Amino acid sequence: MSESTSAKSELTWAVLGGGNGGQALSGHLALMGFAVRLYDIFPETIDAIRSAGGIQVDGVVSGFGKIETATTDIRPVLEGADIVMVVAPAIAHCDIAAKCAPHLVDGQIVFIHPGATGGTLEFNRVLLELGCGKSINLAESESLLYSCRSQKPGYATIFGIKNELMVAALPATATKGVVELLNQAFPQIYAGSNVLETSLSNANAMMHPAPTLLNTSMIESGKDWLYYWDGVTPSIGAFVEALDEERLAVASAFGLKLPGILEWYKIHYGAEGKTLSEAVKQNQAYAKVKGQDTLRTRYLLEDIPTGLVPMARLARLAGVDVDRMETMIKLGEFLTGEDFTSSGRSLEKLGLADMSVPEILRYLQTGKRN
Amino acid sequence: MSESTSAKSELTWAVLGGGNGGQALSGHLALMGFAVRLYDIFPETIDAIRSAGGIQVDGVVSGFGKIETATTDIRPVLEGADIVMVVAPAIAHCDIAAKCAPHLVDGQIVFIHPGATGGTLEFNRVLLELGCGKSINLAESESLLYSCRSQKPGYATIFGIKNELMVAALPATATKGVVELLNQAFPQIYAGSNVLETSLSNANAMMHPAPTLLNTSMIESGKDWLYYWDGVTPSIGAFVEALDEERLAVASAFGLKLPGILEWYKIHYGAEGKTLSEAVKQNQAYAKVKGQDTLRTRYLLEDIPTGLVPMARLARLAGVDVDRMETMIKLGEFLTGEDFTSSGRSLEKLGLADMSVPEILRYLQTGKRN
Repeated sequence: MSESTSAKSELTWAVLGGGNGGQALSGHLALMGFAVRLYDIFPETIDAIRSAGGIQVDGVVSGFGKIETATTDIRPVLEGADIVMVVAPAIAHCDIAAKCAPHLVDGQIVFIHPGATGGTLEFNRVLLELGCGKSINLAESESLLYSCRSQKPGYATIFGIKNELMVAALPATATKGVVELLNQAFPQIYAGSNVLETSLSNANAMMHPAPTLLNTSMIESGKDWLYYWDGVTPSIGAFVEALDEERLAVASAFGLKLPGILEWYKIHYGAEGKTLSEAVKQNQAYAKVKGQDTLRTRYLLEDIPTGLVPMARLARLAGVDVDRMETMIKLGEFLTGEDFTSSGRSLEKLGLADMSVPEILRYLQTGKRN
Repeated sequence: MSESTSAKSELTWAVLGGGNGGQALSGHLALMGFAVRLYDIFPETIDAIRSAGGIQVDGVVSGFGKIETATTDIRPVLEGADIVMVVAPAIAHCDIAAKCAPHLVDGQIVFIHPGATGGTLEFNRVLLELGCGKSINLAESESLLYSCRSQKPGYATIFGIKNELMVAALPATATKGVVELLNQAFPQIYAGSNVLETSLSNANAMMHPAPTLLNTSMIESGKDWLYYWDGVTPSIGAFVEALDEERLAVASAFGLKLPGILEWYKIHYGAEGKTLSEAVKQNQAYAKVKGQDTLRTRYLLEDIPTGLVPMARLARLAGVDVDRMETMIKLGEFLTGEDFTSSGRSLEKLGLADMSVPEILRYLQTGKRN
């Protein structure tokens, strides 16, 4: 952790993922004066950024962020990077881990931003399976720091930046050092107690699959609608609040006391309401968040297998009843035809198979499985 | 069955239930020349019909049907009736059976119109439990013969009358005689093989709970919408088709080959489509069927406990996987706060506890439980 004392601009960041979040973060980091490399699988994205030489950022931050390297080849992006920041759909984390494995070196930080539920655990399991014996610090955030959008490759708009963002490392003993380093760019980042705290703080798992499934007819109506303002009706909001109680019960079984979703809205958006349906309508950031016109979006295809599935599997291990989570997983499978039970983050995929709750807690703390 | 040879007008009908169906049927039967008595629990309904002396019918049938007796007292309605026709929400069948038990006499027919799923079985179980040892012929129809509405007590509009309607009796050996008698008023009625055939032909269990639940946001949107035309979107229709496959599998486990829901629309409405979503839009009878504005309607509160629950329990007994049915029952419980698992028609409530499939089939045929 000697880097934690380096001057700001000496840190080199590898950003893996050139979508909305990846471009906004790359551009902003570059504007802050950091050396930034960007990797994405899509040549169109990479070509546009490379030919422009960087990313034009606007919104709450603005300017042209120069990108050192933009490429579809992961190796030169990773080489010499201090912090490897994964900003990609959670269903891609597994593949990204496999691509990183041969190139990572001792002392690098891999920061999964965000990890959804179990991002770090899965990443670590893949590295171990592929025989990557390097001493890496793996960390994850509870959500994405920005609300942002890239209208086209090379352009990113940052609508808002969260006031605080929880990050935890695996092992938890490494969290302090990682957070200090990340704070050089992002002072909002603070330490969670372990990667289950960040993983179980995945609000998308609460706010995306259930409202989406219960808006199936709205989604297929051909009409314009607002995802939160129209979609979180009183009964849907009440269902999500009950679903959220299940999440808190899982957290509690692992010794974590987390804020509930209503508290979460107060903390992150200053949005208050007696019910979730009321609270989301107090969140002006949702005023323009349109509803989908198809069921095949990340709200189901990502947030079920990398949100509800790992939460439900952890619940089963800990003997917590999560009937609503299980029901949403099944309904999601029925309506999309996907087999999230198989594709999702099982305990095996998280590297937690056959472990008890105390063994898992020890592993989270020490990084040692026995 | 000596009545089967009586002249038409000599049959006396007791209609239990003065809602939409009960008033339309009472009015129509009276117009056909039958003696009709009507029972309902609501004094407002009864008072209006009694003071008018009958029911004004319009639509595909019209005229003033004179009602012999309209009362909230069940005894004089049952006394001397040849056919007791129960036209009431299925969740009321159990109470109605208990009220009938002391007054029924040998040879009466109790025709549950419709029985939802397990109407006759439940009615019989209640009669037996209350020690009603009379020799009654219990029968049920697969659905309601009419599409109709009562705008106010004493007035009924019959929009349409089905071309055919399956009826079966318990025991099945009595079906032929019952159907012959019912045919004096309703030539459309034909014999099903047993009361599981009528019970598992309950299309409401397919068309009501799932589309309602998956239209939760539409229901609470405050907007006008059409239940079938807007509500059965492609994904919802596909889900119901898969749900319907489960129903057919349950039927098959009990030796019944039933038409699927697409075939059912062709038979009953001449509505054809490659998918259910297309087929319902070909059914002009649905053009004005508006969507609900609350989840608390019979589409959930009746069709889950007296439709999906008994189907799912029969499935479990027969070892048939009905994951979609189970998921809809749970989701219905979560969204309404009702405990359909307890309140619904369990095998115990149907009088089928601890019986095997062959034992049930023998019981349906003979009416004997051993």
